[in-house]
Amino acid sequence: MKLWHGADYNYEQWLDRPEVLNQDFAAMKAANCNVMTVGVFSWANYEPREGEFHFEWMDTLLDRLHRQGMKAILATPSGARPAWLSTAYPEVLRVDVLGHRAHHSGRHNHCRTSPIYREKAAQLNDRLAERYGNHPALALWHVSNEYNGGSCYCGPCLTAFRSWLQERYKTLEVLNQKWWTTFWSHRFSSWDEIYPDDSSVNGMMLDWARFTSEQTIDFYRAETAPLRRRTPQVPITTNFHGPHVGLDYFAFAKEVDVVSWDNYPTWHTQESDTITAVKTAFLHDLYRSMKGKSFLMMESTPSQTNWQGISPLKRPGMHKLASIQAIAHGSNSVQYFQWRQSRGGEEKFHGAVLSHQSSMNTRTFQDVVQVGHELQNLDSVYEAAVESEVALVTDFENKWAIDLAQLPQSTDKRYEEELQLPYEVLWKRGISTDIVDTRPRDWGRFKLILAPMLYLVREDLADQWKPWVEQGGTLVLTYLSGYVDDNDLCFEGGAPGPLSSLAGLRVEETDALSPQMVQSFHYRGNRFPARHYADLILPTAECETVAVYDHEFYSGRPVLTCRKLGKGSVWYLATRSDSAFWSAFLADRCADAGVAPAVPWPIPEGVSVRRRGNTIFVMNFHPHEVAFSIGSGGEVIKLSGYGFQVLQAP
Amino acid sequence: MKLWHGADYNYEQWLDRPEVLNQDFAAMKAANCNVMTVGVFSWANYEPREGEFHFEWMDTLLDRLHRQGMKAILATPSGARPAWLSTAYPEVLRVDVLGHRAHHSGRHNHCRTSPIYREKAAQLNDRLAERYGNHPALALWHVSNEYNGGSCYCGPCLTAFRSWLQERYKTLEVLNQKWWTTFWSHRFSSWDEIYPDDSSVNGMMLDWARFTSEQTIDFYRAETAPLRRRTPQVPITTNFHGPHVGLDYFAFAKEVDVVSWDNYPTWHTQESDTITAVKTAFLHDLYRSMKGKSFLMMESTPSQTNWQGISPLKRPGMHKLASIQAIAHGSNSVQYFQWRQSRGGEEKFHGAVLSHQSSMNTRTFQDVVQVGHELQNLDSVYEAAVESEVALVTDFENKWAIDLAQLPQSTDKRYEEELQLPYEVLWKRGISTDIVDTRPRDWGRFKLILAPMLYLVREDLADQWKPWVEQGGTLVLTYLSGYVDDNDLCFEGGAPGPLSSLAGLRVEETDALSPQMVQSFHYRGNRFPARHYADLILPTAECETVAVYDHEFYSGRPVLTCRKLGKGSVWYLATRSDSAFWSAFLADRCADAGVAPAVPWPIPEGVSVRRRGNTIFVMNFHPHEVAFSIGSGGEVIKLSGYGFQVLQAP
Amino acid sequence: MKLWHGADYNYEQWLDRPEVLNQDFAAMKAANCNVMTVGVFSWANYEPREGEFHFEWMDTLLDRLHRQGMKAILATPSGARPAWLSTAYPEVLRVDVLGHRAHHSGRHNHCRTSPIYREKAAQLNDRLAERYGNHPALALWHVSNEYNGGSCYCGPCLTAFRSWLQERYKTLEVLNQKWWTTFWSHRFSSWDEIYPDDSSVNGMMLDWARFTSEQTIDFYRAETAPLRRRTPQVPITTNFHGPHVGLDYFAFAKEVDVVSWDNYPTWHTQESDTITAVKTAFLHDLYRSMKGKSFLMMESTPSQTNWQGISPLKRPGMHKLASIQAIAHGSNSVQYFQWRQSRGGEEKFHGAVLSHQSSMNTRTFQDVVQVGHELQNLDSVYEAAVESEVALVTDFENKWAIDLAQLPQSTDKRYEEELQLPYEVLWKRGISTDIVDTRPRDWGRFKLILAPMLYLVREDLADQWKPWVEQGGTLVLTYLSGYVDDNDLCFEGGAPGPLSSLAGLRVEETDALSPQMVQSFHYRGNRFPARHYADLILPTAECETVAVYDHEFYSGRPVLTCRKLGKGSVWYLATRSDSAFWSAFLADRCADAGVAPAVPWPIPEGVSVRRRGNTIFVMNFHPHEVAFSIGSGGEVIKLSGYGFQVLQAP
Repeated sequence: MKLWHGADYNYEQWLDRPEVLNQDFAAMKAANCNVMTVGVFSWANYEPREGEFHFEWMDTLLDRLHRQGMKAILATPSGARPAWLSTAYPEVLRVDVLGHRAHHSGRHNHCRTSPIYREKAAQLNDRLAERYGNHPALALWHVSNEYNGGSCYCGPCLTAFRSWLQERYKTLEVLNQKWWTTFWSHRFSSWDEIYPDDSSVNGMMLDWARFTSEQTIDFYRAETAPLRRRTPQVPITTNFHGPHVGLDYFAFAKEVDVVSWDNYPTWHTQESDTITAVKTAFLHDLYRSMKGKSFLMMESTPSQTNWQGISPLKRPGMHKLASIQAIAHGSNSVQYFQWRQSRGGEEKFHGAVLSHQSSMNTRTFQDVVQVGHELQNLDSVYEAAVESEVALVTDFENKWAIDLAQLPQSTDKRYEEELQLPYEVLWKRGISTDIVDTRPRDWGRFKLILAPMLYLVREDLADQWKPWVEQGGTLVLTYLSGYVDDNDLCFEGGAPGPLSSLAGLRVEETDALSPQMVQSFHYRGNRFPARHYADLILPTAECETVAVYDHEFYSGRPVLTCRKLGKGSVWYLATRSDSAFWSAFLADRCADAGVAPAVPWPIPEGVSVRRRGNTIFVMNFHPHEVAFSIGSGGEVIKLSGYGFQVLQAP
Repeated sequence: MKLWHGADYNYEQWLDRPEVLNQDFAAMKAANCNVMTVGVFSWANYEPREGEFHFEWMDTLLDRLHRQGMKAILATPSGARPAWLSTAYPEVLRVDVLGHRAHHSGRHNHCRTSPIYREKAAQLNDRLAERYGNHPALALWHVSNEYNGGSCYCGPCLTAFRSWLQERYKTLEVLNQKWWTTFWSHRFSSWDEIYPDDSSVNGMMLDWARFTSEQTIDFYRAETAPLRRRTPQVPITTNFHGPHVGLDYFAFAKEVDVVSWDNYPTWHTQESDTITAVKTAFLHDLYRSMKGKSFLMMESTPSQTNWQGISPLKRPGMHKLASIQAIAHGSNSVQYFQWRQSRGGEEKFHGAVLSHQSSMNTRTFQDVVQVGHELQNLDSVYEAAVESEVALVTDFENKWAIDLAQLPQSTDKRYEEELQLPYEVLWKRGISTDIVDTRPRDWGRFKLILAPMLYLVREDLADQWKPWVEQGGTLVLTYLSGYVDDNDLCFEGGAPGPLSSLAGLRVEETDALSPQMVQSFHYRGNRFPARHYADLILPTAECETVAVYDHEFYSGRPVLTCRKLGKGSVWYLATRSDSAFWSAFLADRCADAGVAPAVPWPIPEGVSVRRRGNTIFVMNFHPHEVAFSIGSGGEVIKLSGYGFQVLQAP
Repeated sequence: MKLWHGADYNYEQWLDRPEVLNQDFAAMKAANCNVMTVGVFSWANYEPREGEFHFEWMDTLLDRLHRQGMKAILATPSGARPAWLSTAYPEVLRVDVLGHRAHHSGRHNHCRTSPIYREKAAQLNDRLAERYGNHPALALWHVSNEYNGGSCYCGPCLTAFRSWLQERYKTLEVLNQKWWTTFWSHRFSSWDEIYPDDSSVNGMMLDWARFTSEQTIDFYRAETAPLRRRTPQVPITTNFHGPHVGLDYFAFAKEVDVVSWDNYPTWHTQESDTITAVKTAFLHDLYRSMKGKSFLMMESTPSQTNWQGISPLKRPGMHKLASIQAIAHGSNSVQYFQWRQSRGGEEKFHGAVLSHQSSMNTRTFQDVVQVGHELQNLDSVYEAAVESEVALVTDFENKWAIDLAQLPQSTDKRYEEELQLPYEVLWKRGISTDIVDTRPRDWGRFKLILAPMLYLVREDLADQWKPWVEQGGTLVLTYLSGYVDDNDLCFEGGAPGPLSSLAGLRVEETDALSPQMVQSFHYRGNRFPARHYADLILPTAECETVAVYDHEFYSGRPVLTCRKLGKGSVWYLATRSDSAFWSAFLADRCADAGVAPAVPWPIPEGVSVRRRGNTIFVMNFHPHEVAFSIGSGGEVIKLSGYGFQVLQAP
């Protein structure tokens, strides 16, 4: 079996219970598992006291996995440190903005700058690489766990930030200019005066977010150095999550060999599971797009979580369907957190393949067995590509800058929701979408680019896109775009800044609409709502007005424009609308741009069709049966509730 | 008059106003008061500067009470300390989790470990006992005021916690095993590494809650030592409140001679006063059950409070009714906070027998006079017992563990509400209930035991209950029971842990239902809702399925089971239902178990019937008149709005 | 042009951009601006490093303003300090209640006690006064910016507070009595024990609020000392805002030569703009009343703000209307924050005369141009008085004391809303109202005094008002009046304390009504609601019952009373009612008292009529046209949506 099937395995919690371990391995076999993630939180087992190392238990574990024909994803254990380390070296603990050093507690909360933490982690990683680098079970390094961008204000972090700023700006003169510090007398006369706790200096806070992300990636590099040196042949990943955890994952993805992520959809908590299916699909596509190739679903729950407030049982079929969805979007694995429930601690009620009941006669275990069987038949999709003609553009820095901005309409910024809106329309039409950032790339692969709410625009972006549009590309821009440059400085001339020349317009002013304020417009004879933001734009002569506002003193002024540029066109939507609008609008844009869905037949609501290589996945996210005709021959496909079918492309 | 009638009397606030004090004593006489609680916050009066003591004012007060034929409940003043003490010994102030030492402020907030605070408090208590131990007015010690379990993280508290842990676990090896510290590498290699600020280590946090409660009781013991030594003949109490203030009151109750508590129902704020009456009755029964004998209602307001947001005036009759309710449930007193309103400070608008108007011509004062008259006629109930055949089981530790738990359904835990539900049904039927914990006791007194949501189960509980059931007892268990042992470690084999052998079933998985998710079942032909939690259980052959789920993929699976065991039976309710269900269900269980109500006639809605000794109290919590027939002879009882009658049992 | 038209001008942000500055001055001319506020946040420009001063840029700016015939409002820059100052002297930063010294950040947050901050600010102000005192452009000093009463708990502040208390109380004996510290043993035995962090000692917290306000005014005095010395001829202001920012503005107003304030109404966010118009009018009247003469509107936005969540575009006409409203209520200026949008920092999206687009062809700029033209025609109102026959009484100390109070009804205190209610009725009737505090003043100017919810009553107030009533004045009092003296000590005898002899009644008790509780009364045949508070009063024989409660056990007891006193009368409203009641009630009181509206004709809803000197402003706050007849001759006035007319009084 090529695809991976496995789980996070907390073997070390049961070292004194050989009968439990024996049951584990028997169950892995029964469930057709071929990989286990091990050692994720094992630092205290490896090094129970400073400098005293114990690897025998891991030797035994890896040997046993190998004997059973399984692979190991071996973690480095830096996600949580032993208590002795926090006690001996308090500097490994983060300091909050008021100066309080954290107590030893929780996980994922070490200072990422601390030299001693870097040294201790690298030392242990070096021993792991030395000892297990050639172990036949070792398939992948899993570096640390769910890194995040939480702030630390300790001395070394502040010093590192100031050095990072010096590197970026060279002189205080430039920094003061870029941060616009004459405002409120915020000018800095010494690097040491800089303390990143002033929300009024937006530029500083954006740089602090950047620095925190980069410093985390730098920590990751320090962790991986001994692995790269000793085991250049073993690929490396770290499990992403979120996605909004304070890290620029697009940048981070460049550093890993394979992207992996932890997937926890909240099935059965929305009025329809389709909503959850779309959100989950979005994230699969986001993580796949980061390296433009297959990824790993490193974690998912085979039953419930214990941290989402209310996590209903998965209805029959849902676990298999959700696993197949991951594969359909480009995952090479279905992996679980966790293999077996702990008896104590915060995650003792997190779902697992084996619950406290410790039985294989459970519904959950049988669901996992079925996934194991399904994956066996999908060798053909292993490493097969998912191809997209549409790009949806987003930047983590853009998100950070929007979050920092105080706008005339700050109550309903909703950046993430606005990305979902066009994505959902494409999902329903069976059109695959790549979700990409604005760093230079080969845009030529795409026929249609959607870039909603691109508030922060890097200098070179218009230059990247202009030739692509001229060659025939269709670009869609919206309100709240082109406000600031990458120093969070407003563009002189106003929005949409450098995108103005592409769109052929300027924004004179933007109405801020409260939820009660009514605005609308007509597109192709249908009326659509306009909400929250309403640009009053000044189009140039090259820019065609496609739709106008219905109400208020700006009734009749353009709300949707199109500017032809070479063989392509640039669309500008001056307000926020709804799903129905995007559905009508994107139907036309896809037609213009020649974007084709995965299959030629109409797809019923709630059904998702994805193509990966030559395999077509047809998935029913309804709890009830759905039957529909595919192809002109009248052939009918019937899917049970939460059922799916795998077809071969003609 | 045997029953007590009195108030907290802040005599020391008016030392310079003899005419005010004269009016006080005249009014006490008019209101038929026979006791006053004095000296509650008088440390600064006793010891205005360190080592300088003044008792003359209290001498005068006690003498005057005695001369007027009244008794004194003499408080120790540790509930608030003089400013000089906080200044001279800052270590008496609590330290918060981030390390901030509190300022001198408020009350009930001293460090309970501080040696100097213990010494100063004991020294003053010793002087009080020496001086007043033989005073003829002294009837009861009132130690401190409304102790609570607020955390202190000062050095001595942390050291005491670590010692307490050493005492409990002996070795770190055992502690690490019991706290399951291999999870997230949380293993401790030195006692000093333990800092109780890590919600991910549930076992530690549960122990911290235990320690805080026990340390408070230990402080109480240190306070009472000089009193016990010098005045062994004088009983001791401390006023409970809450009940959820971080203290295990069942354990604390063993240390006092009489339980007393402060009762502040929110009359007239719910859609019906019956709701408030039931909640209040529950608390009276809880505190009475702690020692299984009469208690004292140490505080209540004769009019309004000033700390409940909105506290309406008591409607005519309500004050008398609420006072009688306390007596009916086993109180030997009606006491007020406060005798006279202060002119300044946080409680200056808290209701009092004498308001700022300082008049006896007020409605409130006349209400108090009437209560004084009523109590005169109730000598026969003094010390008479309230007998219960039903036990409702709850543990403070169970509450703490549920609060700490991260469950698949954490949004609607509602432990306290779920205790109220069956209690209310019994209240309406005129059935007296004891509310007890799970520590070993004589269960033989009870015919029916209700133990909802018993998440934490002590090792010996099943052994306590098994013989009782076999002898004919009826035990009712529910969902969310038997998850963890008293170290918060999940039972291997899953829920309901050791109760599994009693109930004859295991829980395979538990659905987490959001408020929108519909589930139901039928019992005796009627449909009842199933909410929030829905166990999918695996019954053994001995276990009979009484009702099944109506919906979802587990439609038809058992939701209510009964297992016969010897002469008794064990019921298991797998989901959360409503008042109507409990009403139908408990009618049957009471009939089975032979549990009889206080009176043979039907009780109208909103009327409460309680028996204490041979006295029967019939109380109308409606604002309107209620008339109903009692007994077969067609005798009719008529109760005015908020009226009551006292009957003698035949 | 006599009236001022201008803006905050951040000239220093564009020193390297002469073309931008040139555009600024051209635009000022186009907009008919005659004044600019300059140097508000320029400390870092004046003194980029300690002791190194640069004034050339300001020389140039003032000269250029002068050359263009404009005046300068020159700010002192203490509102924000340079980073070097915070670094060199951390004691200038505030300390929070837990002891954390703030980081250098934001603005308006320096310690107001710090000797070094006072020295540095005074030193710079001295240089400004020396250099620019005789500059022909200088018209007004603008000291600092938007002072506030945020707390600082640093050592010098605590010491200053204790000295302030010693000055106030002389001995601890007196302080302990006034703060009623026997309550909860809070008695102080040394001044050093006093730390203003104990909400249970209401008197202390009220004094802390007073001290903070007075210390801020003291800082202002220290700032202005060099200005007064060097430029006695130049008037001084500081811009007020809020109004509830922790300062007693009535006291502060005595220290300035002209009151100025910053006006940011939230137009178009309520169901009707009339609501916003009334609130704004209230504030104009409040600030005008402080000195009883014309004031300056120092800031307003010509378009949107960026800090109000949702700030819609001003609809056509609204900017001009809002500007005229200020003039009608007594302002001598229309000034904006800000002239030009910054490129960076927290306020970069705050509206400005010139947006990032930097164009004079915008709607906003044209609105400003129109205001410039309007003001040209209004020389006649410059310094003309607004006369009022009605006084609405409020005290900042009253507000603080109400906020501190724990009452039986604390959920719906709503002091500010209750001031608005009668104000709105008078506004709609075209009756001008002064809003004044209770300090001694010439009450004889007024015919009607409204004093709702006067919870804190100064000793001398009844003596101030008694002769005024006897001479024919009409005084209206309400529930929640006369509870405490100026030490927050409850009056013996209860409410309404010293006002009791005026109103001829005492309050026995006060019902606290939840929103669901129904109460009402009838006045002149109409039924009105009674909410939240319902006094049960004991009227004396001299007091006439005008209306009674309809419901509850106090049905039939008085809710509205009138006591004749000499030629006047004192009304007492025992409950909270609504706008309709106040409308009916004040119609009668105005008739009784002979209070006349500005014009004899009826004023349609949504239209405001104000008289200033001999000019009558008629303003339509509806978005639609309104036409109505004025005068008996059938003359009709027609106002466009958001339109206005300026009439001359006959």
